[in-house]
Amino acid sequence: MTNTNEGVSQTEKFKRVPTHIGIIPDGNRRWALSHEMAKHEGYAHGIDPGMRLVELCAAYGVKEATFYAFTVDNTKRASAQIEAYTAACVKAVEAAANRDYNIMALGNEDSRFFPSKLSEYANKRVNYGNGVLNINFLVNYSWKWDLSHIDGSGMSPGAVEKAVASHDIPRIDLIIRWGGRRRLSGFLPVQSVYADFFVVDDYWPDFRDEHFLDALRWYQDCDVTLGG
Amino acid sequence: MTNTNEGVSQTEKFKRVPTHIGIIPDGNRRWALSHEMAKHEGYAHGIDPGMRLVELCAAYGVKEATFYAFTVDNTKRASAQIEAYTAACVKAVEAAANRDYNIMALGNEDSRFFPSKLSEYANKRVNYGNGVLNINFLVNYSWKWDLSHIDGSGMSPGAVEKAVASHDIPRIDLIIRWGGRRRLSGFLPVQSVYADFFVVDDYWPDFRDEHFLDALRWYQDCDVTLGG
Repeated sequence: MTNTNEGVSQTEKFKRVPTHIGIIPDGNRRWALSHEMAKHEGYAHGIDPGMRLVELCAAYGVKEATFYAFTVDNTKRASAQIEAYTAACVKAVEAAANRDYNIMALGNEDSRFFPSKLSEYANKRVNYGNGVLNINFLVNYSWKWDLSHIDGSGMSPGAVEKAVASHDIPRIDLIIRWGGRRRLSGFLPVQSVYADFFVVDDYWPDFRDEHFLDALRWYQDCDVTLGG
Repeated sequence: MTNTNEGVSQTEKFKRVPTHIGIIPDGNRRWALSHEMAKHEGYAHGIDPGMRLVELCAAYGVKEATFYAFTVDNTKRASAQIEAYTAACVKAVEAAANRDYNIMALGNEDSRFFPSKLSEYANKRVNYGNGVLNINFLVNYSWKWDLSHIDGSGMSPGAVEKAVASHDIPRIDLIIRWGGRRRLSGFLPVQSVYADFFVVDDYWPDFRDEHFLDALRWYQDCDVTLGG
């Protein structure tokens, strides 16, 4: 059991901190190409940024972080890429486990693309230590798979949030996307309905603490209305 | 029948134009306050911008535009505001009808908040003239209402798009939101999954052609991947 806040000192106070952050760590392949590597070599460089980000979340009082690890759409890519992002995803989960974080891997586990090494985390939360942060990894996730669990016959609209496959993941307050693209790409459509959306132009492997702090600086002045 | 492109000359060429644009015309109340009016007085100033925008869409080859008129969440507001946005919504639909646009009002019509004057457009498209543009108005819409129509028992995930209440509205390529907020606020979660998101800081009543053109300039260089 290691200290979750290793090397992170909270140096800035915010008026308001998001409870739950969604992370879209995009740009691994473009980063690799810009470093004269093959596309698939980018993913391994996305693990350390993820660990640093969860340490920052814990230090600044964020309670939950959900990472867009890989999707069913992504499984149509070249096999070298599939192997590389699957390995990176497993390593990221293993790096986060056995600390003070609770871990869940959410996605379609009835598929050969769901890594067997993550089956103990599949669609259930495994708690560790003081559980200062819930970390969810979307693994072989698909928004269509998620929503197709809604069985609306006779359902009141208010029950929709509890009917999706991802019902254990609560509403997201802030989504941060790296790599410059300004879209959700199928990331948890139900939990994202009221989320504020912050885009970092840098690629994910170029993560810096300042990206996270910029997002929190921006978020503290967003006016939360929940559609009202 | 009037000419739909009145006063619009297409002066700029784009590499790629979105087929379907989502419009979140936010900031009417803040605009009113900044002009020393009561909040509800802002909505009436949002009708002409909408007409201008659809003329621009038609002139530049956009095929469909969906406006976030008002939501079930919005019906919790003060009654003066409800009356004002309902009146503005009816006027906007009437202004768009009897031209070369096909019109639909999509939302929960089994409610007193759905304006009876729009019942002929309720959840079905009414075609006019040459139908150069489909215009959809979300009227008393709610994302929970929309998704609660999914009856997932035995459904394949691929059928989700056809199962929502809004199944007649296709995938959105570009969402433009006025008023500076960077969130979807429950706007068509299924159709928005792959949409690129462009935010205009100005309030909706301050609409200028340049906002639309800026969005198209930005969009033409977005790399469309549909999650792949």
